Amino acid sequence: MSKRIITLGEVMMRLSTPGHERFIQTHYYEVQFGGAEANVAASLAYWGESVAHICAFPDHEIGRAAVRYLRSSGIDTSYVYFGEGRMGIYFFENGAMHRSSKIIYDRFGSAFSQFDCDQVDWKKVFEGADWFHWTGITPAISEPAARLCLEAIKAAHQLGVTVSGDINYRRNLWQYGKTPVDVMPGLIQYTDVIIAGLTDFANCMNIHDEDFVRACERAKAQFPQIKFISTTHREALSSTHNKLSGVLWNGEALIQGPTFDMPNIVDRVGGGDAFMAGLIHGLLNKPDKEALTFALAASVLKHSISGDANFVTLQEVEQLVTGENVGKLLR
Amino acid sequence: MSKRIITLGEVMMRLSTPGHERFIQTHYYEVQFGGAEANVAASLAYWGESVAHICAFPDHEIGRAAVRYLRSSGIDTSYVYFGEGRMGIYFFENGAMHRSSKIIYDRFGSAFSQFDCDQVDWKKVFEGADWFHWTGITPAISEPAARLCLEAIKAAHQLGVTVSGDINYRRNLWQYGKTPVDVMPGLIQYTDVIIAGLTDFANCMNIHDEDFVRACERAKAQFPQIKFISTTHREALSSTHNKLSGVLWNGEALIQGPTFDMPNIVDRVGGGDAFMAGLIHGLLNKPDKEALTFALAASVLKHSISGDANFVTLQEVEQLVTGENVGKLLR
Amino acid sequence: MSKRIITLGEVMMRLSTPGHERFIQTHYYEVQFGGAEANVAASLAYWGESVAHICAFPDHEIGRAAVRYLRSSGIDTSYVYFGEGRMGIYFFENGAMHRSSKIIYDRFGSAFSQFDCDQVDWKKVFEGADWFHWTGITPAISEPAARLCLEAIKAAHQLGVTVSGDINYRRNLWQYGKTPVDVMPGLIQYTDVIIAGLTDFANCMNIHDEDFVRACERAKAQFPQIKFISTTHREALSSTHNKLSGVLWNGEALIQGPTFDMPNIVDRVGGGDAFMAGLIHGLLNKPDKEALTFALAASVLKHSISGDANFVTLQEVEQLVTGENVGKLLR
Amino acid sequence: MSKRIITLGEVMMRLSTPGHERFIQTHYYEVQFGGAEANVAASLAYWGESVAHICAFPDHEIGRAAVRYLRSSGIDTSYVYFGEGRMGIYFFENGAMHRSSKIIYDRFGSAFSQFDCDQVDWKKVFEGADWFHWTGITPAISEPAARLCLEAIKAAHQLGVTVSGDINYRRNLWQYGKTPVDVMPGLIQYTDVIIAGLTDFANCMNIHDEDFVRACERAKAQFPQIKFISTTHREALSSTHNKLSGVLWNGEALIQGPTFDMPNIVDRVGGGDAFMAGLIHGLLNKPDKEALTFALAASVLKHSISGDANFVTLQEVEQLVTGENVGKLLR
Amino acid sequence: MSKRIITLGEVMMRLSTPGHERFIQTHYYEVQFGGAEANVAASLAYWGESVAHICAFPDHEIGRAAVRYLRSSGIDTSYVYFGEGRMGIYFFENGAMHRSSKIIYDRFGSAFSQFDCDQVDWKKVFEGADWFHWTGITPAISEPAARLCLEAIKAAHQLGVTVSGDINYRRNLWQYGKTPVDVMPGLIQYTDVIIAGLTDFANCMNIHDEDFVRACERAKAQFPQIKFISTTHREALSSTHNKLSGVLWNGEALIQGPTFDMPNIVDRVGGGDAFMAGLIHGLLNKPDKEALTFALAASVLKHSISGDANFVTLQEVEQLVTGENVGKLLR
Amino acid sequence: MSKRIITLGEVMMRLSTPGHERFIQTHYYEVQFGGAEANVAASLAYWGESVAHICAFPDHEIGRAAVRYLRSSGIDTSYVYFGEGRMGIYFFENGAMHRSSKIIYDRFGSAFSQFDCDQVDWKKVFEGADWFHWTGITPAISEPAARLCLEAIKAAHQLGVTVSGDINYRRNLWQYGKTPVDVMPGLIQYTDVIIAGLTDFANCMNIHDEDFVRACERAKAQFPQIKFISTTHREALSSTHNKLSGVLWNGEALIQGPTFDMPNIVDRVGGGDAFMAGLIHGLLNKPDKEALTFALAASVLKHSISGDANFVTLQEVEQLVTGENVGKLLR
Repeated sequence: MSKRIITLGEVMMRLSTPGHERFIQTHYYEVQFGGAEANVAASLAYWGESVAHICAFPDHEIGRAAVRYLRSSGIDTSYVYFGEGRMGIYFFENGAMHRSSKIIYDRFGSAFSQFDCDQVDWKKVFEGADWFHWTGITPAISEPAARLCLEAIKAAHQLGVTVSGDINYRRNLWQYGKTPVDVMPGLIQYTDVIIAGLTDFANCMNIHDEDFVRACERAKAQFPQIKFISTTHREALSSTHNKLSGVLWNGEALIQGPTFDMPNIVDRVGGGDAFMAGLIHGLLNKPDKEALTFALAASVLKHSISGDANFVTLQEVEQLVTGENVGKLLR
Repeated sequence: MSKRIITLGEVMMRLSTPGHERFIQTHYYEVQFGGAEANVAASLAYWGESVAHICAFPDHEIGRAAVRYLRSSGIDTSYVYFGEGRMGIYFFENGAMHRSSKIIYDRFGSAFSQFDCDQVDWKKVFEGADWFHWTGITPAISEPAARLCLEAIKAAHQLGVTVSGDINYRRNLWQYGKTPVDVMPGLIQYTDVIIAGLTDFANCMNIHDEDFVRACERAKAQFPQIKFISTTHREALSSTHNKLSGVLWNGEALIQGPTFDMPNIVDRVGGGDAFMAGLIHGLLNKPDKEALTFALAASVLKHSISGDANFVTLQEVEQLVTGENVGKLLR
Repeated sequence: MSKRIITLGEVMMRLSTPGHERFIQTHYYEVQFGGAEANVAASLAYWGESVAHICAFPDHEIGRAAVRYLRSSGIDTSYVYFGEGRMGIYFFENGAMHRSSKIIYDRFGSAFSQFDCDQVDWKKVFEGADWFHWTGITPAISEPAARLCLEAIKAAHQLGVTVSGDINYRRNLWQYGKTPVDVMPGLIQYTDVIIAGLTDFANCMNIHDEDFVRACERAKAQFPQIKFISTTHREALSSTHNKLSGVLWNGEALIQGPTFDMPNIVDRVGGGDAFMAGLIHGLLNKPDKEALTFALAASVLKHSISGDANFVTLQEVEQLVTGENVGKLLR
Repeated sequence: MSKRIITLGEVMMRLSTPGHERFIQTHYYEVQFGGAEANVAASLAYWGESVAHICAFPDHEIGRAAVRYLRSSGIDTSYVYFGEGRMGIYFFENGAMHRSSKIIYDRFGSAFSQFDCDQVDWKKVFEGADWFHWTGITPAISEPAARLCLEAIKAAHQLGVTVSGDINYRRNLWQYGKTPVDVMPGLIQYTDVIIAGLTDFANCMNIHDEDFVRACERAKAQFPQIKFISTTHREALSSTHNKLSGVLWNGEALIQGPTFDMPNIVDRVGGGDAFMAGLIHGLLNKPDKEALTFALAASVLKHSISGDANFVTLQEVEQLVTGENVGKLLR
Repeated sequence: MSKRIITLGEVMMRLSTPGHERFIQTHYYEVQFGGAEANVAASLAYWGESVAHICAFPDHEIGRAAVRYLRSSGIDTSYVYFGEGRMGIYFFENGAMHRSSKIIYDRFGSAFSQFDCDQVDWKKVFEGADWFHWTGITPAISEPAARLCLEAIKAAHQLGVTVSGDINYRRNLWQYGKTPVDVMPGLIQYTDVIIAGLTDFANCMNIHDEDFVRACERAKAQFPQIKFISTTHREALSSTHNKLSGVLWNGEALIQGPTFDMPNIVDRVGGGDAFMAGLIHGLLNKPDKEALTFALAASVLKHSISGDANFVTLQEVEQLVTGENVGKLLR
Repeated sequence: MSKRIITLGEVMMRLSTPGHERFIQTHYYEVQFGGAEANVAASLAYWGESVAHICAFPDHEIGRAAVRYLRSSGIDTSYVYFGEGRMGIYFFENGAMHRSSKIIYDRFGSAFSQFDCDQVDWKKVFEGADWFHWTGITPAISEPAARLCLEAIKAAHQLGVTVSGDINYRRNLWQYGKTPVDVMPGLIQYTDVIIAGLTDFANCMNIHDEDFVRACERAKAQFPQIKFISTTHREALSSTHNKLSGVLWNGEALIQGPTFDMPNIVDRVGGGDAFMAGLIHGLLNKPDKEALTFALAASVLKHSISGDANFVTLQEVEQLVTGENVGKLLR
């Protein structure tokens, strides 16, 4: 039976140069849509879960095109709102060799950032829900977005829904007068599953520790609701060649996942979101260690696909885990 | 000998759907750059004049791509500044048949709108200049932009440069607390050549008159600096089929230009700017009546070209005036 | 409040050559999805109705891509089934000038044609439904498709749902051993709103009459359930220039709609389906004469849009009816 | 039974800007191949005739790509030679509205212009041939090309093959020291069917006469071999809208063909060659008047197709003559 | 002197997503044509051999487009037939990294599968022929195709033509009621050169042996006509990185070819067919060991080219064998 | 403060097949412009230097499009001339794996090759200049080009401008009757910085020596003006994988630069020019060893960018030198 999962976060228009063209030389942009949380939603919906995404768009055709994208992904758009403000945009230039990939964000003043959460009926949103997912991007955007995120987390928690949060500290956001340590602890306290690396611990929980397990234990001590903390490790040999690994701390032990070699990367954007979706799927359906491996394999496959969303089936992820059919020509 | 012409105004990234695709269905956007005043600059530079354009961009690769466009057009970019703020964008959907064309502006918060004109050395800008051109879009954008426009006009006027202004009233702009009648008269008083229709007279000069000549005379009475007032008349039978005409009032008489039938329009954006450029070229080089005809012919040819800029030669405009080589296959 | 509308019919992959390229010279095909009934569904969903579409696809990624299209259009895909058989395809070459447009169908053996309707829970399908729409293409495809169509119509009728049918006689189909006159009367008898021209009367109802009103009266006599009969008239001056008109017989009088001139057609495929959607919307919301005008205007706008689906808003259709904003540049 | 037709002439790479883009703004060129005589060959081969084309290319992959094009068109390439020299190129910009279409030729120094005809075994070439076609472009290119053309015509004539020549005077060619009146009469004297307008008569036969019939009679007097003289008349209302008509003088009378109105032209290049192919087909298979009408209809349809070649079937041309199926959607 | 080679097999339309896009996300398909045997034919024709291909297409423009492709490749299409049935299609999605490439076949009901071989004049087909090539795909398609294959092989054998067969067992075909062991031995008995791996031996010759040489010897014992048996070995490290090797058994010894490392694969489809063409060329022109090396090098180069066909010259293959000019920028 | 740098050399239209397509299979060409010396100019202008480029084009729109390119790159085009002759073209096919990249030059008869340097006012050109750069391609093109190159070098030298020359011996040029040893010594004698490998020493300076340092010393002995000699070493493992290193001899010692591994090359054309630009920038701003490293890093980054020009910032080059941010996703 499919699970009911609720996600919340801004969806931007992604404008990417074709191939490896630089911003300076491009003559057109490919249009896609994406956002950290909606990418998680798209993965889970592709795997058959019943997913609804909460966000807001400007009330014009480009806003509606974003809704079309969410719908096409099988995401329930009952909680997509239209309001004042612009469409958040991010411009993407895909690096190659030693040359880094680049994102230029153009998201300030978006409809999402101005969305007033008082119009949301949280009871209805979370009715029958099994899981709620948020990221640290939302509270970093604006005061209203931070309030939206807090209200959602609180409601989910009160209604017994498992809550996951990808801390995802972004220095360039947080421009509305609050700092992460002002805001994030209030959100983390209701969260069951956390994605956080050492930087996130430091910046968002004020936990400064070089040892990941000790940092986890200190986080747990501070936020007893936490059940799992996970993070990935990416080694970037070049824009085209990375290695990916990850760990999962389950309150008892640190599980080390396998390391995947990733030459010939097609598009790394959304790799972390693919991991998150894989972890949610895994924790809902598998033992901890398998959950982590599944999440890493899902993330690896994302790197072979252009765009934010991870168009891979459960079977494809499972086959990468077992090594079956990898690199074949399937007829 | 080529003339020295200075233009001022925001340059936006133009993102247009391919062919006649709607925003809702497009998978990519074609990238161009344009803006009313820069379109005038591009026309005049293409015709061999020495043109410099004043504007501001964000200091990232997309801002620099806009500069590349201006340079490619042969425009002197010595007075292009980089600063805080985003890149103004406009999304364009080309209509067809009965279906209208659509522009979604996304220009609030641009680097241009925040540009502080104190850093401009106006003496240097207008050294050797013959003409300065502005439009009513700039004072409508923001307080700093209105101030920039006023400073430029005053400096040009004081330095003996002929000033033209396309009044171009846009209801959706003017959101910073001022109204056109607060601001525009202060700009028009130093302007020699005006593009204005009855709506512009009403909204920007508070001259409410159904008779164009009388409106011109009232404007002249109020703003004695004015020497020419011109406007075009477009009859839109459909998105693909328009008729274009125009008039020029030279303080003595109203000159009526020819009417051009325009079936099979390729792209009408920038048609007015092509007229403006034609009028500047005409008034600098021809008797009044020929200037008007030249301006209309230049505008007509713009409708056959995709993008904001009017890539037609002086010879092509002249040949449309005389009817030579129209619709041929030139080998 | 939005209406609940159910549609049924095959959705094919549409592979069209770019621009006006011929099949013989193309190097790529644009991919879209469409089908007469799903086109009606897409229009109605775009206008805010709650629409579910019944069909079947092969259980592979291309079948799933078709589902993505339906979902993106806001269509409820709860009654989309997966089964044996291939994906129906149609290849489209857009004519120009005197040269006709061409469709090569490649739909035999499709999953839809083999779909076994016993798995459908009709009570659930039509729960809360206001309208059911079918066309004469479905019973022409195969024995199972004809049975599916009949079962759906009967169920809708029994559950008090208004039924519309676009007779749409296609000579090249009907290859499974039955003729239209064997099958169609059994479907028409439960149908309230019929789209039929003289050829349809003759081939599908065995009513041979040169007078449309008399044909309608004879049809009504034979099938008392019929409340409305409508048809459009298209005059093809060339592939690029048509005229469109239509009539609506409401049991009492023949209402003649306006004639629209349509030069510079972009894509005429789906024009009839846009009319059908307009008529359903019109009959649900307007007096008969206005319903017909609305339907014709909706169809006219479809001709300005590439693809099967009619991406126009209610407001755009209404404005074409009143002549407002036609052929403008809307900012 | 198909006829054996031999054609001779340079085939160039055609590089055209997409849509209506100007040379100055294009980012890519579409690649096709064409040339007046090969266009005739492609039409006739498409209609089922057995056609061989004589020409020469540089011995590299782009030369071989040209051969691939000829082969794809069903043209026998046994008499395609490889040798010193470059690939002739022509750049094409498709006009729109009042703006003319433009060709920039870049053909000097081509392999064809340097081809030494001594290596051709004319007996073998014309074995079983029914028709030979040349144009006035070949003798205008270079000394060796003029000699090639003369040798071919003489051989064809001696072997009893019907010879047609499209005089096609091009002022920009003829740069190798000879004038048309030096060269052309020597070629025309062996030619049975001539395409020539008044300019061609004047420049190539030194026949200066304003009356077409009288010019034909004077030509016949001078070159008794001539049996037919034909020419088309094109009225260019705009780049997008032409009218086309034509006449055929058969030694006895002047036959006036119908006038076709051609709005919404897609691509006029090759229109004359399509007429020529139609005339050859017509004269081989039909009475004179029908031959002319067929040729005009073939030319009209060419205007709906992008590229040099006329991808229309015999049936499509016949249907345009009778008006059947024009502008329909054929399923 | 070029050899005369006859090939037989279905040619499908290949519709591939651009770049590495998945079926689920593509907006267009690139059109090519290909089929195992026609790919062999295209290679050999590109190398200057005289090649004719036997197949059948539906009698519409898409069928004719396939013929254009064969002709462009320099293949004699005298034995291409038109008949009832559809165009076989295969959809191709190019994998990347760990993600496999995918083919969705849509070939049932094709004109080729229904082709009645009684209309072929085998004497004429094989007149002057040196070699005939077939694959195990043809007898797997349908009863008529199996009969066509048998008739061709028998005729070739009787007329003294060397016969090669690529066994190429495909589990998803063979749906018409026969099994490979019913049919294949009857074809293999007249075949001189066989491509077969252990799976092919087992499924098509009922020879179950883990040792390749012993399997060859058993095959030779059963089918004494066999002179050569060859197979390739591909190690798929990922979709983008394979290693390729191969062996040739000549009745006396097993020759082991070199192993080529293939990182950065562009398109592996047709790699086996490129090997086959290389082997035919090699066996006709070189000692056995060199023939095998040539075939492997040809196959390796195919992986650098998009599409089914191997557009590499003899010289390029020879240079890969010697290592000359590999990876250079040739000016 | 930016430096004033003058460059001289032909700019060609670059027509490249998309992706890794071969010439034989392409349907369109991407249009760019480039030439060895203009590529150097574009790099230096991108880094903020004041650069003027001397060259000549045909006086038509394609020539003017080339000027647009130069202008867009921020290059001063005051010394671009228009004259008789064609546009030089080069066709580029990007290799992959073992398959080499290919350039077909089509540059004979260009406007540049016929340019008469008497019209150049060298005093004005070199006023305020710090550096002049030429390559051995210019004197190889034609007599007038060789004279142009000599005049420029002499003038620069006399006016105290540092002169650099990339010897760049190309066997396929030099077809106008002179040999490199006739011409090159006369140019090298006024040159301060030389790029030359052993082949260049041999062919252009008649210095045959296997030892690079000894060759440098012999060159210095012969041409005392020389201060630096540099060359790069490229190891081509495949078209997609190269290694790059280089050396700089400064009259005293041979400095060995680092070796960069370059898998996943996007486009290697212009790699040498990027090195040259880096070396000029380096020698003007850094110690010798750092100059060499900077030049190599600049060249490496060029391989990640499509087209001739090296669109990388100074900061990006510096970061590659230090290893910072390599292969990251920069937000």
